[in-house]
Amino acid sequence: MLAHVLEGADIRTTNSVAEVAAAHAQKRTLWVDLEERTPETEALLADTFKLHPLVIEDIWGDRSLPKIEDFDAYLYLIVHGVKQGSGRRIELLELDLVLGQTFVITYQHESRGAHACREDLARSPKLLKKGAVWLAHALLDHLVDHYLPLVDAFDGELVIIEREIPDKAGLPEGRALLHRLFGLRRVVHEIRQVAVHQRELLLRLSRGEFDEIPPEAVPFFRDVYDHFARFTAVVDGYREMLSSTVEAYLSVQSNRMNEVMKTLTLISTVMLPITFIAGVYGMNFEHMPELRWPYGYAFALGLMVLVTAASVVFFKRRRWL
Amino acid sequence: MLAHVLEGADIRTTNSVAEVAAAHAQKRTLWVDLEERTPETEALLADTFKLHPLVIEDIWGDRSLPKIEDFDAYLYLIVHGVKQGSGRRIELLELDLVLGQTFVITYQHESRGAHACREDLARSPKLLKKGAVWLAHALLDHLVDHYLPLVDAFDGELVIIEREIPDKAGLPEGRALLHRLFGLRRVVHEIRQVAVHQRELLLRLSRGEFDEIPPEAVPFFRDVYDHFARFTAVVDGYREMLSSTVEAYLSVQSNRMNEVMKTLTLISTVMLPITFIAGVYGMNFEHMPELRWPYGYAFALGLMVLVTAASVVFFKRRRWL
Amino acid sequence: MLAHVLEGADIRTTNSVAEVAAAHAQKRTLWVDLEERTPETEALLADTFKLHPLVIEDIWGDRSLPKIEDFDAYLYLIVHGVKQGSGRRIELLELDLVLGQTFVITYQHESRGAHACREDLARSPKLLKKGAVWLAHALLDHLVDHYLPLVDAFDGELVIIEREIPDKAGLPEGRALLHRLFGLRRVVHEIRQVAVHQRELLLRLSRGEFDEIPPEAVPFFRDVYDHFARFTAVVDGYREMLSSTVEAYLSVQSNRMNEVMKTLTLISTVMLPITFIAGVYGMNFEHMPELRWPYGYAFALGLMVLVTAASVVFFKRRRWL
Amino acid sequence: MLAHVLEGADIRTTNSVAEVAAAHAQKRTLWVDLEERTPETEALLADTFKLHPLVIEDIWGDRSLPKIEDFDAYLYLIVHGVKQGSGRRIELLELDLVLGQTFVITYQHESRGAHACREDLARSPKLLKKGAVWLAHALLDHLVDHYLPLVDAFDGELVIIEREIPDKAGLPEGRALLHRLFGLRRVVHEIRQVAVHQRELLLRLSRGEFDEIPPEAVPFFRDVYDHFARFTAVVDGYREMLSSTVEAYLSVQSNRMNEVMKTLTLISTVMLPITFIAGVYGMNFEHMPELRWPYGYAFALGLMVLVTAASVVFFKRRRWL
Amino acid sequence: MLAHVLEGADIRTTNSVAEVAAAHAQKRTLWVDLEERTPETEALLADTFKLHPLVIEDIWGDRSLPKIEDFDAYLYLIVHGVKQGSGRRIELLELDLVLGQTFVITYQHESRGAHACREDLARSPKLLKKGAVWLAHALLDHLVDHYLPLVDAFDGELVIIEREIPDKAGLPEGRALLHRLFGLRRVVHEIRQVAVHQRELLLRLSRGEFDEIPPEAVPFFRDVYDHFARFTAVVDGYREMLSSTVEAYLSVQSNRMNEVMKTLTLISTVMLPITFIAGVYGMNFEHMPELRWPYGYAFALGLMVLVTAASVVFFKRRRWL
Repeated sequence: MLAHVLEGADIRTTNSVAEVAAAHAQKRTLWVDLEERTPETEALLADTFKLHPLVIEDIWGDRSLPKIEDFDAYLYLIVHGVKQGSGRRIELLELDLVLGQTFVITYQHESRGAHACREDLARSPKLLKKGAVWLAHALLDHLVDHYLPLVDAFDGELVIIEREIPDKAGLPEGRALLHRLFGLRRVVHEIRQVAVHQRELLLRLSRGEFDEIPPEAVPFFRDVYDHFARFTAVVDGYREMLSSTVEAYLSVQSNRMNEVMKTLTLISTVMLPITFIAGVYGMNFEHMPELRWPYGYAFALGLMVLVTAASVVFFKRRRWL
Repeated sequence: MLAHVLEGADIRTTNSVAEVAAAHAQKRTLWVDLEERTPETEALLADTFKLHPLVIEDIWGDRSLPKIEDFDAYLYLIVHGVKQGSGRRIELLELDLVLGQTFVITYQHESRGAHACREDLARSPKLLKKGAVWLAHALLDHLVDHYLPLVDAFDGELVIIEREIPDKAGLPEGRALLHRLFGLRRVVHEIRQVAVHQRELLLRLSRGEFDEIPPEAVPFFRDVYDHFARFTAVVDGYREMLSSTVEAYLSVQSNRMNEVMKTLTLISTVMLPITFIAGVYGMNFEHMPELRWPYGYAFALGLMVLVTAASVVFFKRRRWL
Repeated sequence: MLAHVLEGADIRTTNSVAEVAAAHAQKRTLWVDLEERTPETEALLADTFKLHPLVIEDIWGDRSLPKIEDFDAYLYLIVHGVKQGSGRRIELLELDLVLGQTFVITYQHESRGAHACREDLARSPKLLKKGAVWLAHALLDHLVDHYLPLVDAFDGELVIIEREIPDKAGLPEGRALLHRLFGLRRVVHEIRQVAVHQRELLLRLSRGEFDEIPPEAVPFFRDVYDHFARFTAVVDGYREMLSSTVEAYLSVQSNRMNEVMKTLTLISTVMLPITFIAGVYGMNFEHMPELRWPYGYAFALGLMVLVTAASVVFFKRRRWL
Repeated sequence: MLAHVLEGADIRTTNSVAEVAAAHAQKRTLWVDLEERTPETEALLADTFKLHPLVIEDIWGDRSLPKIEDFDAYLYLIVHGVKQGSGRRIELLELDLVLGQTFVITYQHESRGAHACREDLARSPKLLKKGAVWLAHALLDHLVDHYLPLVDAFDGELVIIEREIPDKAGLPEGRALLHRLFGLRRVVHEIRQVAVHQRELLLRLSRGEFDEIPPEAVPFFRDVYDHFARFTAVVDGYREMLSSTVEAYLSVQSNRMNEVMKTLTLISTVMLPITFIAGVYGMNFEHMPELRWPYGYAFALGLMVLVTAASVVFFKRRRWL
Repeated sequence: MLAHVLEGADIRTTNSVAEVAAAHAQKRTLWVDLEERTPETEALLADTFKLHPLVIEDIWGDRSLPKIEDFDAYLYLIVHGVKQGSGRRIELLELDLVLGQTFVITYQHESRGAHACREDLARSPKLLKKGAVWLAHALLDHLVDHYLPLVDAFDGELVIIEREIPDKAGLPEGRALLHRLFGLRRVVHEIRQVAVHQRELLLRLSRGEFDEIPPEAVPFFRDVYDHFARFTAVVDGYREMLSSTVEAYLSVQSNRMNEVMKTLTLISTVMLPITFIAGVYGMNFEHMPELRWPYGYAFALGLMVLVTAASVVFFKRRRWL
């Protein structure tokens, strides 16, 4: 646990539960950034901040969808940040946030994300001076800011795939391309499932329906909502583009298939008849006058050339060559 | 029939029709959990609780879609719970619920589900002390709670199918995969058909348009609605993912088809011409100079090698190899 | 023409134009069920009931879409009932309905449907005692009631088709299946075209915007609207299921095609090379040492077995066997 | 230019610019139906009716989308009528309409349409007596009335195509069918592009937001809007049906392809092995014991029959025969 | 930097920072058209116009999506114009616009577009006399005007592609066609991503929610919004047409594939059996009575003709010929 307490114009950072409790008793503005579940922090949340037992349980637990709950003395939010992991993996970072009159309590499940977030926020501790709600706003703003670059990353990846389609679709390498396309789709699907609920949550925050958010702060939460709504709109456009790319892949593949089939048909149409001719003159009948002709062989070869020429003309006519 | 009657601070459980009638006459809060259609329960519903004959008929009957009906003295609801049966089968459990000022009457068609439900609810009989409407709320809350895990189950199944697609699509094993995909689709379709109406029903309950639901209970019904609306949103996202997976299956299958066709074309393009050459020199013309050449055989074999090489070069050029 | 006139507490049924005119003059509640276009009924509508000439024209005519028209003294409605004809044919039965203060005039174009309807309604003539609007409500309610079973019939048909897909898709029998699927689609399309307008018409009736419908009757028309809106929602879900089933058909067919192609490729890959070997040793060169080897024949056969084995291994590796 | 001027209870038709100017000065209700751009009509519009120069320019010009512009003294509308040309061609007929307090000015670009329109309207010149706005209403009503039959024409064409699909899909004749389907699609697309804007324009007219349209006329414009909105709804349903028909075409074609491929596979699976057997006994090895057997030939033929039978059994098992 | 300052009834154009500062101090209406980032202009924006440092940063920077920000003394807009580049490339031209009470500041990132825009606007400098907001309106109007011709260009291109589909789909040339189709799709996708946000921005401008836009100017901004909304509606229709065209391409290609496959099957079905017959009589058995028949050869040839005829009849029956 790391707590940032406002003392006059300065911020004191502490990890002592007792100090936090004392500061809260003096109604000092403070931010408690939870790290590990210990009996002391447990007690702090329950006794000092008087959180509902179910909220405390939820903070430590893992939950799949964003939600907001309004209690008498505080708001409880579960929101999801996002982080580009190694490779093209996208990680959703759950952030638990309790916003009271004079305090903000946060918990991030994955320590890496929490660390990054803490650093970022350490640069603007003066937010605490304006009040707890402004810190909460900064946290959400920060969290939403990481979403938009994601789409750029997706779009970049998609542009690369699109560029490779004409060369690879329908070839064995193409399967990896398809794999990447459908991988992107699943990621987008997962982000959307979360984003739909998160957008609604942010909309409710931005409508001023909660006492914890004073009217003068509402436009700022509205701004956070606008950013996120824009993100979801862009993601929806991107999703359509993904479908279009899969379609492009399949049509190029189908085009290539056509060429393969035409080659096969061409080769068969030319080869089968002349092989048949050869077969005829390979028969062992005693009475086959052609076999004795002096120019029989030439005649057979000529016949073969003729048939080949006819096939080629036929294909030219049908525009298959 | 099993009735739970509130007596002071205690709950008395009885299956005597007379006791229920007496308790209702004293305006005691009670919950009647119907089990079998008997003349006594029939009479209880009609004479003691004064339910409309059509409602009594509907309670015992089977109806396909959720609905809500507002009578003067009570609300009549048909809602559907959900249960994961054996295998991947999903069962919809119809719950008939009559909510009066001081009583709740329920009937569940499938005894198994009713049993499970009764056990669950037995743990919180104190609800009755708060009033009949809170029991009704608990029943609906309980019922809705079973929906969300369903989607997780679906999603798990879908992830497994997705993982098997690259290996199985286009192979005979793939047909079972397709079967599972379309089975999931039908289940999702059926759940949605019900869910659309159930969501609207819950929305109406949560808007405070019914006298039976006092204003202080409305937010709690709103909560039930929120949960269910969230479920339907997640199901819609899931449905899109299902479509995308079917598409993935088909594109992998089509990719594999391309490879099969290329193999066929390759083998034909190489084999047909050289078989033709062999055919030519298998002809029985008396005057075929090559047949008498000392190196005729070697020449023929060389020709075959040449043609094969040309085909391979052709395929390499077209990037089919 | 068959008229039902309320006389005190009784219903008198007559087909005399004069009696109807007299009863109407006495402001008796009555229901005129038209059958054939005759000069007398023509005159009755124009002179006694003072219908607009265009309305009279419309009543006898055939019109493709539901509509509602509000005149000073009456409402004129065209609605469509539905009937399952022989086979899987669905017939839309147009019902013309004029609702005045004390009278209802109806006309159904197909006598069969009219007959069935009249019988049904004969059972509840007491409706007339409550007033003309309640009869109109009963007529609409009756008409809407026949829609929902339709979807069950569709769904049953669809379930049967779904069950036959794994066996028949891609086979000649499959074409009949496809035919049934697309037939269902057209029927659903036609019903929806009508239903969209009928739903809006019913919505307007249920909003109390017409004087002919007193406030106490509005909730009952609302109920009719609810039923019909529910029908259209279910039809929309069903339409999606139809699309999904067509897709299922095509994917199973495509899967089967893959198997066919693989069989062809397999047989060609095995047969073409060994046939080529046979061709080589069928050549007539004078100098072919193998032909004279004592074990030449065995060598050739061995070579063939080897090539076959190699092909099989190749296919096993590619998981095509 | 042809002008219809109301004089008392009569209509005087004139093509004198001076008369029109005089009539307008006396505030007589009149309708000016423009024909050709001449300096006199130009002057009439500018000086007598005081139209804005940009409006005059727009009237003579060609513009692709419907629009409405509200000026102080008049409304300027561009709307599109529709006409079925020869073959299946649909022509959009642009109608420019200026509606003032006492006058209507119209211009139709294609003289044929204008002619037809004038004839139609000549039958009801009494409209002018009610006022200019009622003439404008009649013009729009007339124009919208021609839309609905269009859909019937489309639907008829579609039904014909649907009926031909089972016979022609996948055959060379099928391409003409596809051509017709996609031609219909483009026409529907073009009509919709216009209809979307025209519907909004009519909606605005029917909302009473313009002074030129008195409250008592608003319901009639609402009626025009209703008709047009119904048309667009039907077109949307039709569009879906078109997609479904293309899909039907493709699935029948794919089904036929399957049959073709199965025939090929069948013929190859039977012929290739027995041809191979013939090839083996066509080899020229000196030591081939079978060649000398008295029943060698019969043995070979028997072997071929056996292989053929095995293939047939294999196909029967796979249900390909 | 090029500044247009209103002096009485004249416009003075200057590029002196000092003059602009002086004019602004005298509250003269002026338009500053930025060109390059220099310390002087930097100072002008910060000190004279008192723009927020973040706004100044944004003006010079590159940003992907349109936005609007409301400051106390001015509005800051990022909007996108559009320009058809060489080939079929579409360039989005970002325009930064600051609208104050008496001034407009603009910056266009690409000098070419800025140049064209400046020229256009130079023709109507009198706009400045009406006030800064009217200049801003003119700038936006101008910008939006360039969107609609774009769709015409797209549509023209699409019509060309559609016309080439019957000839080229499924042929190697077809791949270029597909490429163009999917290129169009990406362009439309990119324009839509921007347009969605720009439309909302214009909607907000047209709702009169900003003090900088006086009520009398609102209808004009509404007009700009209407134009743009119309553009986006047309683009959406166009997008559907694009999908339909891709589908048309694929179905024509699939049709052609069918013909190719049928040719292959036809040739194989005819050739394989007669080649087999030739193979049989090419066998070297000592005891083959036919070989010694005087008419053996004729018999074999007759057999081949018979088999060929049977195949042709078979194909005719199946309507493959």
